[in-house]
Amino acid sequence: MVEVTRRGLMFVLSSPSGAGKTTIARRLLESDDNLTLSISATTRSKRASEVDGRDYVFIAKDKFDRMVERGEFLEHAEVFGNFYGTPQDPVEEALAGGKDVLFDIDWQGAKQLREARPSDVVSVFILPPSRKELEDRLRRRAEDPDDVVNARMAKASGEIGHWSEYSHIVVNRDVDAAIDETRAILNAARLERTRQTGLPGLVDELLKE
Amino acid sequence: MVEVTRRGLMFVLSSPSGAGKTTIARRLLESDDNLTLSISATTRSKRASEVDGRDYVFIAKDKFDRMVERGEFLEHAEVFGNFYGTPQDPVEEALAGGKDVLFDIDWQGAKQLREARPSDVVSVFILPPSRKELEDRLRRRAEDPDDVVNARMAKASGEIGHWSEYSHIVVNRDVDAAIDETRAILNAARLERTRQTGLPGLVDELLKE
Repeated sequence: MVEVTRRGLMFVLSSPSGAGKTTIARRLLESDDNLTLSISATTRSKRASEVDGRDYVFIAKDKFDRMVERGEFLEHAEVFGNFYGTPQDPVEEALAGGKDVLFDIDWQGAKQLREARPSDVVSVFILPPSRKELEDRLRRRAEDPDDVVNARMAKASGEIGHWSEYSHIVVNRDVDAAIDETRAILNAARLERTRQTGLPGLVDELLKE
Repeated sequence: MVEVTRRGLMFVLSSPSGAGKTTIARRLLESDDNLTLSISATTRSKRASEVDGRDYVFIAKDKFDRMVERGEFLEHAEVFGNFYGTPQDPVEEALAGGKDVLFDIDWQGAKQLREARPSDVVSVFILPPSRKELEDRLRRRAEDPDDVVNARMAKASGEIGHWSEYSHIVVNRDVDAAIDETRAILNAARLERTRQTGLPGLVDELLKE
């Protein structure tokens, strides 16, 4: 019995900092062999906890500019003076190989991906369950020495304002439930008729005299 | 912490006879408290294995005609001289109560539901994995004494021809996997932004100063 072939899809996860997106993304990737992470390129400095090529591809501003000029990014944006972009080649390779690609990006990147590839993108916004919970999580995870919770809350609010641009919304009350929900969205998207490019062949076989 | 309220959805399952739809529908209903089955009304005779009000609501042709005249069906159709219809009232009650409603109906009914309620319907077509498997299943489950496999195959082929009208396709190679896939489609549909009517309220609370 042959698997029905299908197009890979672009699975976008966005959320305000502190809503649990990174944990959900990591656990999805660990449990799903057909899902691969898109690594963004950035001009910002590497933090102590980060690994080049795992968390980001860290590049200089002049290289970033050249990639923009050559159209080598699927999306790119400036955030607080730093530049971020999604290199197109690794994504196209994965999709052509039938892999789905996970994008852990903000609303600006999600918007550009949706505009560039409307039929390939499924986008999920993860919301915290309450204002209090969001504040508590932001306090617990402060990493940079000059972090202040108010500034982080302002940034989170700016991101949350774009919730209605996403096709699906997961409210993260419980991380295991949120992972199950996000996985259901991914698996259902794989079963959309238009993504299963092998179906006409199967139907031909079913209907042959 | 309050659940985000949402609109119930209309979850349509169709397949040719012998593709496993009935098993999938039953197992979904058993495992999902928020899903309720729409019971069709029909003018055909009750079979020995059927229970009135569980499998169908069996009604006389004149009553069926009156219900059609009064617009009391969400969809109705004639199949081989018998009439089938979905009474609207129980469906509306379930949806208003936040329940999702499962419809085990053929392509004609699915088409009418989609036309009547485009934003409420999610439709899944279940395909057998191969012609040989379909024939084997039809042979094994022959119930009526005058059943002939060729006639059943012709009917199945007629139904399969409508596969491309459905939003999602599940190929039933393994019934447990097919149930998981169908459940993922249902759960993902529940997480679509536009169905979660309580989200604007949650976002207001998250963004309040």
